[in-house]
Amino acid sequence: MLEARSAVKTLHAYRPPLAGRQGLRLDFNESTAGCSPRVLERLRSLDRETLARYPEREPVEAVVAKFLGLHPDQVLLTNGVDEAIHLLCATYLEPGDDAIIVVPTFAMYALFAQAQGASVIEIPASEDFAFPMDELLSRITGRTRLIAIANPNNPTGKVVATDLLLQVATAAPQAAILIDEAYFEFHGDTVLDSVRPPNLFVARTFSKAYGLAGLRIGILAADARQIAMVRRVASPYNVNAVALAVLPEAIADRTYVDGYVAEVKRARALLELELAALGLQYWPSRANFVLVHIGDAHEQFVKALRARGILVRDRSTDPGCHGCVRLTVGSETHTQQLIRALREIAADLKLSREVTA
Amino acid sequence: MLEARSAVKTLHAYRPPLAGRQGLRLDFNESTAGCSPRVLERLRSLDRETLARYPEREPVEAVVAKFLGLHPDQVLLTNGVDEAIHLLCATYLEPGDDAIIVVPTFAMYALFAQAQGASVIEIPASEDFAFPMDELLSRITGRTRLIAIANPNNPTGKVVATDLLLQVATAAPQAAILIDEAYFEFHGDTVLDSVRPPNLFVARTFSKAYGLAGLRIGILAADARQIAMVRRVASPYNVNAVALAVLPEAIADRTYVDGYVAEVKRARALLELELAALGLQYWPSRANFVLVHIGDAHEQFVKALRARGILVRDRSTDPGCHGCVRLTVGSETHTQQLIRALREIAADLKLSREVTA
Repeated sequence: MLEARSAVKTLHAYRPPLAGRQGLRLDFNESTAGCSPRVLERLRSLDRETLARYPEREPVEAVVAKFLGLHPDQVLLTNGVDEAIHLLCATYLEPGDDAIIVVPTFAMYALFAQAQGASVIEIPASEDFAFPMDELLSRITGRTRLIAIANPNNPTGKVVATDLLLQVATAAPQAAILIDEAYFEFHGDTVLDSVRPPNLFVARTFSKAYGLAGLRIGILAADARQIAMVRRVASPYNVNAVALAVLPEAIADRTYVDGYVAEVKRARALLELELAALGLQYWPSRANFVLVHIGDAHEQFVKALRARGILVRDRSTDPGCHGCVRLTVGSETHTQQLIRALREIAADLKLSREVTA
Repeated sequence: MLEARSAVKTLHAYRPPLAGRQGLRLDFNESTAGCSPRVLERLRSLDRETLARYPEREPVEAVVAKFLGLHPDQVLLTNGVDEAIHLLCATYLEPGDDAIIVVPTFAMYALFAQAQGASVIEIPASEDFAFPMDELLSRITGRTRLIAIANPNNPTGKVVATDLLLQVATAAPQAAILIDEAYFEFHGDTVLDSVRPPNLFVARTFSKAYGLAGLRIGILAADARQIAMVRRVASPYNVNAVALAVLPEAIADRTYVDGYVAEVKRARALLELELAALGLQYWPSRANFVLVHIGDAHEQFVKALRARGILVRDRSTDPGCHGCVRLTVGSETHTQQLIRALREIAADLKLSREVTA
């Protein structure tokens, strides 16, 4: 009888609620405006030859490297950040190793670390989801082989200062330190611009600010010797030809991306003002979403929004997130639509902090 | 100092010769005609919303399952067959396990098995690349956890009878048996139609007959309980949204695919006749390529074809393949172009078997 590895038998498949996503989708932190028109134009110009050929990743890696101010040997394009995490775990983790994460955070770090048979050490965030720096440093041992930190963090929208992240990397030179900057554009700070310790990995994505979640384009950047190791476990054809064809257009249209990011930041400020006005507890965010505490009515709240054609994500089962819901911040128009719905629902459900406290 | 796992340090990255592929590409077994026009039409109708959303794999898995006569729980769509192999290895292999392959064969079985820390047992094919059934059965032990067989095999084009494949599966019930049917359409026999042992996995691809190598669409089919295990280590977003959008069109246009496959079979017969007429040794193929023995002049041969604008793949470094070159069979027109070049080159290089012997 064929049995999966014991590490796999203990895993739970990550099955996000993708079915029936009709309406205004503020549930997956996607762009509500979509990609640059230049991307779509390039896509529509593709011919059958491009689809028939195996994708050639390296020329586009050179474009991305130049954009990031790196050497092509320091960059690996991946099938979304999910694959970057998977490859990082496959390169560095095995049974007996520890992977440290600060929770709540993105689910895939723990999943791929467990799949490798590593032990996952979950450190709870401090009060108000602050980064538990001292606790994290105290848990680093010789067995620590991966520390994964999303910055800004998902689902809290909180950030960690660059100097702290570099301290973590220095404190665990035997470990791969992944700084997942999927939401970098909405924050602005990055460890990529720093003098980087050789064990530091930075992930970026085109799924959020660039509006290309469907195309699956992630970036893993690090020291060239480490990227060479990760490259060994990657398929040469991991990123599809459509993604590779349109990526240079997505990068080149700065006006479009910068405009969308600026709009999301304005909309985020509006939304946070409104949440405050409604008396709801929320955590100021540096990403394109805001985590808000609804309390025991969280399911009703999500349903009430759905009834108004707006999808958001209940995060109640995330560690420390009971009663919390994550609201994606999209364009200003879409955020206004959300705000109108929030006002109605807050009144209906009597949600203000005073009332629920 | 951060060190990769020891299994990774011994790997060699697989770097296929993708750069500068100008001309008639008969080097990667791609379709030279490209996909159905319906696929391109669907691609060009895609909007920004489709690109902005995370891909939803399951509805398309249902379409593929129906097409294969399977239940959706028996099917996993993958980012090309490469990912199917990777996930299979990640699900079942760990240090101490053996993976058995018959060489020469597709490079990725050994690579992903080694990356898991498993030992790869390479069994050389018998004379004329015949399947070494007895030798294979004799090497199965309690440690055998994967047996990967490409059928038709790449780069030889040879096939194994279904009953033998089922015997292998029955002989190693503790192992995952992968039958990689990437070239199924050009052969016609499949283990999918059989009563399948619960440890049997079948891989298919849309990269070859369907002309969609650029989009990265593979299929892994097996017993639902095993697919559930493999699904746990896969990202929910592993297949991109463009691939998912066009896949139903690719499947639905039977006339187009069947027509191309029939044309390739006619072209393959023509090419084999020509190789025989030229006195060159080749192995009758059931795939969309033919392996031909050129001898010591293999590099000159590849160069001479390149000088005529035709790319083919030197397989000399594959086990048992010294002096061998693999020629992809494309459309009849493209094959005629290859045949004209072969005639000129055979005369120039004095390649016939009599001369080189």
